[in-house]
Amino acid sequence: MSSNWGNHIKLSIFGESHGPSIGMVLDGLPAGEPIDMEQLRAFMDRRRPGKNRMSTPRSETDEPHILSGIYRNHTTGTPLAIEIYNRDTHSSDYAQMDHVARPGHADYTGHLRYCGAQDPRGGGHFSGRLTAPLTAAGGIALQILARRGVSVGAHIASIGPLEDQLFDPVSLSAAILAKPGQKAFPVLDDSAGESMQQLIETCRASQDSVGGVVECGITGFPPGIGSPMFDGLENRFASLLFGIPAVKGLEFGAGFDAARHFGSQMNDPFTIQNSTVQTKTNHHGGILGGISSGMPILFRVAFKPTPSISRQQETVDFQKMESVVLSIRGRHDPCIVPRAVPCVEAAAALALLDAWMEKTK
Amino acid sequence: MSSNWGNHIKLSIFGESHGPSIGMVLDGLPAGEPIDMEQLRAFMDRRRPGKNRMSTPRSETDEPHILSGIYRNHTTGTPLAIEIYNRDTHSSDYAQMDHVARPGHADYTGHLRYCGAQDPRGGGHFSGRLTAPLTAAGGIALQILARRGVSVGAHIASIGPLEDQLFDPVSLSAAILAKPGQKAFPVLDDSAGESMQQLIETCRASQDSVGGVVECGITGFPPGIGSPMFDGLENRFASLLFGIPAVKGLEFGAGFDAARHFGSQMNDPFTIQNSTVQTKTNHHGGILGGISSGMPILFRVAFKPTPSISRQQETVDFQKMESVVLSIRGRHDPCIVPRAVPCVEAAAALALLDAWMEKTK
Amino acid sequence: MSSNWGNHIKLSIFGESHGPSIGMVLDGLPAGEPIDMEQLRAFMDRRRPGKNRMSTPRSETDEPHILSGIYRNHTTGTPLAIEIYNRDTHSSDYAQMDHVARPGHADYTGHLRYCGAQDPRGGGHFSGRLTAPLTAAGGIALQILARRGVSVGAHIASIGPLEDQLFDPVSLSAAILAKPGQKAFPVLDDSAGESMQQLIETCRASQDSVGGVVECGITGFPPGIGSPMFDGLENRFASLLFGIPAVKGLEFGAGFDAARHFGSQMNDPFTIQNSTVQTKTNHHGGILGGISSGMPILFRVAFKPTPSISRQQETVDFQKMESVVLSIRGRHDPCIVPRAVPCVEAAAALALLDAWMEKTK
Amino acid sequence: MSSNWGNHIKLSIFGESHGPSIGMVLDGLPAGEPIDMEQLRAFMDRRRPGKNRMSTPRSETDEPHILSGIYRNHTTGTPLAIEIYNRDTHSSDYAQMDHVARPGHADYTGHLRYCGAQDPRGGGHFSGRLTAPLTAAGGIALQILARRGVSVGAHIASIGPLEDQLFDPVSLSAAILAKPGQKAFPVLDDSAGESMQQLIETCRASQDSVGGVVECGITGFPPGIGSPMFDGLENRFASLLFGIPAVKGLEFGAGFDAARHFGSQMNDPFTIQNSTVQTKTNHHGGILGGISSGMPILFRVAFKPTPSISRQQETVDFQKMESVVLSIRGRHDPCIVPRAVPCVEAAAALALLDAWMEKTK
Repeated sequence: MSSNWGNHIKLSIFGESHGPSIGMVLDGLPAGEPIDMEQLRAFMDRRRPGKNRMSTPRSETDEPHILSGIYRNHTTGTPLAIEIYNRDTHSSDYAQMDHVARPGHADYTGHLRYCGAQDPRGGGHFSGRLTAPLTAAGGIALQILARRGVSVGAHIASIGPLEDQLFDPVSLSAAILAKPGQKAFPVLDDSAGESMQQLIETCRASQDSVGGVVECGITGFPPGIGSPMFDGLENRFASLLFGIPAVKGLEFGAGFDAARHFGSQMNDPFTIQNSTVQTKTNHHGGILGGISSGMPILFRVAFKPTPSISRQQETVDFQKMESVVLSIRGRHDPCIVPRAVPCVEAAAALALLDAWMEKTK
Repeated sequence: MSSNWGNHIKLSIFGESHGPSIGMVLDGLPAGEPIDMEQLRAFMDRRRPGKNRMSTPRSETDEPHILSGIYRNHTTGTPLAIEIYNRDTHSSDYAQMDHVARPGHADYTGHLRYCGAQDPRGGGHFSGRLTAPLTAAGGIALQILARRGVSVGAHIASIGPLEDQLFDPVSLSAAILAKPGQKAFPVLDDSAGESMQQLIETCRASQDSVGGVVECGITGFPPGIGSPMFDGLENRFASLLFGIPAVKGLEFGAGFDAARHFGSQMNDPFTIQNSTVQTKTNHHGGILGGISSGMPILFRVAFKPTPSISRQQETVDFQKMESVVLSIRGRHDPCIVPRAVPCVEAAAALALLDAWMEKTK
Repeated sequence: MSSNWGNHIKLSIFGESHGPSIGMVLDGLPAGEPIDMEQLRAFMDRRRPGKNRMSTPRSETDEPHILSGIYRNHTTGTPLAIEIYNRDTHSSDYAQMDHVARPGHADYTGHLRYCGAQDPRGGGHFSGRLTAPLTAAGGIALQILARRGVSVGAHIASIGPLEDQLFDPVSLSAAILAKPGQKAFPVLDDSAGESMQQLIETCRASQDSVGGVVECGITGFPPGIGSPMFDGLENRFASLLFGIPAVKGLEFGAGFDAARHFGSQMNDPFTIQNSTVQTKTNHHGGILGGISSGMPILFRVAFKPTPSISRQQETVDFQKMESVVLSIRGRHDPCIVPRAVPCVEAAAALALLDAWMEKTK
Repeated sequence: MSSNWGNHIKLSIFGESHGPSIGMVLDGLPAGEPIDMEQLRAFMDRRRPGKNRMSTPRSETDEPHILSGIYRNHTTGTPLAIEIYNRDTHSSDYAQMDHVARPGHADYTGHLRYCGAQDPRGGGHFSGRLTAPLTAAGGIALQILARRGVSVGAHIASIGPLEDQLFDPVSLSAAILAKPGQKAFPVLDDSAGESMQQLIETCRASQDSVGGVVECGITGFPPGIGSPMFDGLENRFASLLFGIPAVKGLEFGAGFDAARHFGSQMNDPFTIQNSTVQTKTNHHGGILGGISSGMPILFRVAFKPTPSISRQQETVDFQKMESVVLSIRGRHDPCIVPRAVPCVEAAAALALLDAWMEKTK
């Protein structure tokens, strides 16, 4: 198995980087939801390759073709399928690399798992390109959630050692969440963003790459949704987010920092504000016992540096079982993090909608 | 839904902190596996409360009663059910707290989710006590994995600001993994452990609590197991680990630190050692593309401080909708981390066995 | 895997015929539902063995012990676990039969599936006794459905060649559905029931057994619930009903008879009655496209004769690989059908509640 | 939810009768399996419409376009996606029928379920046309099973009152199974087939339709595969087969006839033949306790008459809430059964492959 997800909505993703097309089927959506295709395109455009020099020069329009599930611009409630064509493929770039393991990639593990039958071109089904259908699915979910008052927004929290501001965990609002996504480089503090872009450019020039962290915030999600143990909101976010290539860490609220502190510091006192129960601080990140508390939901996702770098690397040919020196050709992002921001929002939206679609009465 | 997990094995956990018993059903196990009950008891004993002054004085023998699935000391292959009695319950401790939200707990969110019908005594189904059946299930999985050459071991990586050594990600061995679990306080460096215990004792004395990080390592897991996207090993670990109360973060391999570095630093060069493909470093934590690489698997789990502290805290009575000052009675651990170590091993074992039971041919 | 079921509620059944206990965990229930234990016992009593000479002389009180999920007589919404003790076990009856395949039983197939590690005593996990926890789960579901206006009732439609009346598919009512279950022998026509009982008694006397059909009806289930293709109501009923041992056939509405007729005969004309859309006839059995139509839901389940008969039978010892003549000892029902009636109602209730708990907006 | 299925392989079907295309994603396949596209086309051609006067004049080539999962003619092991274009759609046939419930169809129940947002053209997602991707998926599964020695074949057992021979449940062979599918009209006894075709032609002439039964047989499936209770082979077959529109009944082995007989007649004596355990008769239909016995697997599926008939029918406009007389235009099969034969084989193959892919050690 690999690419199925969900309890109350079901997502099935298909495709390979250099096949005819990639896509997804999303089942279990509420019926009668208007879908704005322009808005979906604009959202998907935020992760689209080829827009500027910071990302791979591979150019794809990534138009989402609706195959089913939308009729007269509304969801039908039956499976919604979207296909995205692969057009700008340079498979010859990969011709001689079938059995040379690119460090940091799944070439070797994929070869073992699929007994050598996997599609190796451009990483095949392991390619970061598979986040395009994930983003399409999430873009649909975002529109459905927005109609219910839920806002989802993410930004680049750090690139290498350079840090953006973080969201204020108590006063976060839909207006603040919307801002980073409207910028060409999705940060809160544009001067930090400038430095980050320079660092990424330096990486490109030095044939290197760099990692980073994405912070995601959610407001308007009603309290009392989710479940304890394995169907908690954290589990749902996690089960999707670790499906995005290069994700190596995830933390909610104070996260790893909570582990360094005392209960008297980390417990968020409850208080009554505007006749509703809230917390004065928000170290818990909006989730207690797997269930939303009504406070902003906050998490951070760590991305490792793009493993595809064009400088020479030591590796092995696992068929000949001999050492080789590899220079990766092909077109790659020196930093995947800017394009990952909408992917994180998409995953968040799918997790939230799945929890929303759990009937409790 | 809440307490069901698994694709190829299925775990169902039941019970409340102060009900007659807690337990679990584990379906899909291989048949004919010898189960050593003494070993299971010894494993479960590592998380048992009441052993020393560092944990809650609640005393439970936590004997795992086999209801089904084991015949003549071997798994039958049909559902294995284990029941653990609750004996030392002091429900009166919670009598007046039905509608007072303990900060950092799920009292309020659980009340909303279950419309006030949840069992509030001792946290009910949200209690950390529910990790006992998780540990029982994981203890079974550990024995089955051990027979296949897989070793799982965890230790306390940090308590508050105090740090243990970390596992060496390349030279990790079954022998090293086994050591911490044999100690009363599961660390690699006993002098660090001494300081940690003093800090925990200080927390108890000051009516406070403290968080920490658990590091888990796995050796002997064959390369080529797992799947891309949503059924990757990381996703499976995550979907279980975030079911352990108080877990707020999770990272694999270099984790969040990878996000601060460059590709040339983080890519692990492949090499041939003893006629097998290995990596010279192990920043990837033994998993590439969701699939095991054959290198040691490594992850770290962040636990927030125990939210139950006996010093006075501000909070609200969410029925009367008024502010109250709360002093939590009851018996609680000033630091949950030492007892969480076998829970993390248990969750790891279940995730690994689930992946192992995925047929690929 | 074996004994897990459900999409929106999750059922996990455990136990073996001669183990310490059998039981089930039911997760995903709505919270705050009052559960009447007397009513549950009365329902379970309808399938309990040892009540009269028509069933096995094995005597079990089959008291449902609530382990979790009910607090102050209401569902908590977290997993509901029930344990039923096995008391009157005569395992010595099975001592020498470990490798002799009882015809019509799963001894041989179970041996292959579980490599000889299965619990063979009394059929182990394959025993009809495992319908006790199914009935417990269904009894809970029935109470929840009743509160929503849904009635479920079944009766013996035939024993061998002897037939009861069938439910009227159009005028069926809750009052009619309730009647058979109140009788010691659950039929509509008591004179037919008398003949059936005589036939069963004749079977016992001649060391034989006999099969039969159970018809189940449902009223009050709202129209518009269910889904097309694989999550249709028929699929849900079927996936549970074929889990009851000895079930070999299932048909909805006109069923196999519809296959012998013409469209002009089988199409049910729609009409307006009491301002609601209804059908004049009900050959469709209340389900169209997997979705309830508002008409009574009707299906029939075929049970093969109890395979345990005490007359001599030819078979093989599959360990020694030689022919043997078998005389089954032990205590068995000459006809399982009367006790199967509440099991069918239980399965129906679980399928309906699962569909009810699917959120569509 | 609606159109997702499977435990060890995962099938997701999408599309509407008059949308741009229909298709499916099949995940969890073994890697490296050669797929013969000619053979797949030939198999799908058996259910294709427009081939002769007995089926709907709608003409579709139904070419299966591979979008992913096949590389160099072998399965990759990652999701296999197939798209089938809808070309010959006459949506105007349905223009005025949006709120008129066609008797025997899901128009009314679908309207309720999806709040009027469903695609009504040609039945939308409820259309029998959705069996094309099911057949594509099954055709892939059949090729994988054939390589493992498993043969699946079905034939028309009856049309209305007219009956074909049945498969011999003991001596059934791959050669016999293959024959009906090679004929234009898939029966065992061609003279019975002639009469059936005349009956179907009479139905067309009289603007009526007729139902029938399909019998499916399987040989070469190894003994010991499957599981008790809810993951039994019967449950798996059933959960797919009731997803085929118009299926109203299903029976295994002796089925409903077993319910009319005695245990001494229905128990199949075990015997040793060619050093393997077999049964002398096969009333159990090759499945005991949900697990294959090694004997031929046999089941029968009842199809109601095509509900679309062109003679006038009484019904209602459920928007105006008034009675109307309906004459269905559009292009429809007077008998769906001949085209359903490969659909039943496809469903059988998917259920078998799902069970095959369950790892037990």
